[in-house]
Amino acid sequence: MKPEKELPPQQQVASLRHGTVVDHLNPGMALKALQVLGIPADGAALLGINLESPKMGRKDILKLENVEISEADVAKLALFGPQATVSWIREYRVLRKVQVTLPDTISGILRCPNPGCISNHEKIESRFGVERRRPLLVRCGYCERAIEEAEFVLR
Amino acid sequence: MKPEKELPPQQQVASLRHGTVVDHLNPGMALKALQVLGIPADGAALLGINLESPKMGRKDILKLENVEISEADVAKLALFGPQATVSWIREYRVLRKVQVTLPDTISGILRCPNPGCISNHEKIESRFGVERRRPLLVRCGYCERAIEEAEFVLR
Repeated sequence: MKPEKELPPQQQVASLRHGTVVDHLNPGMALKALQVLGIPADGAALLGINLESPKMGRKDILKLENVEISEADVAKLALFGPQATVSWIREYRVLRKVQVTLPDTISGILRCPNPGCISNHEKIESRFGVERRRPLLVRCGYCERAIEEAEFVLR
Repeated sequence: MKPEKELPPQQQVASLRHGTVVDHLNPGMALKALQVLGIPADGAALLGINLESPKMGRKDILKLENVEISEADVAKLALFGPQATVSWIREYRVLRKVQVTLPDTISGILRCPNPGCISNHEKIESRFGVERRRPLLVRCGYCERAIEEAEFVLR
């Protein structure tokens, strides 16, 4: 069979006609971002995991076809990469591009890994304070357990 | 910003220089296939989910860079798409391509979703018989619970 053409790193995952591109996620985090944003009901999801990146060494990228993610979703994505950018694409053009911003408090996305934590036993929203940004470290607002990125579990 | 070029569907996920390509997975199943095969320690993983496919309507594709999956892994992949193919790539060329074959019995990959099933309480390998191939239906060898693809949980 004939060899296929090599694509430059930035095109390792194809361009979208319409949709949302989340670039510069931390390596391995595209899967968690997809879990939060969901697989498009009417379109494809493209994920690049551990891609080479001049800026980050390794990075992830997530592209969602025919989906326009909301501002609320953008805020959640900061958890999976403080350097992440979100671009809204229409007809192959970038309509708008933003850098994610990590809030000081994260509510209702993560689950506390402490089995004894009250947030796992009562109907309350989880809440974590951001204690350190790089590498990311958050602290449970209920039991005060400190949680690193590798321990993140989604609710 | 300038519009990017549209790629044909088969190139929605870039070509690999070295590695393994799993094509024609059932839609949504690339994530489970990645869970079984693992993220490459030394390379990228590229996933296309819900891609358009003339043959299947929608399909998934999984590409693992710098990884040569084993025959044992190929057998596991049949669970995630009876039409799946596996190609081993070196220097952009397909060294070998095989169609997956679903065995009659599946051992040790899936977990029985029945919480009362003995396979969830004792140290025994899970075992399912293949009862129907399309759509896939398997039956637990211990508690006889029938399980459809949407209920598959990996061990």
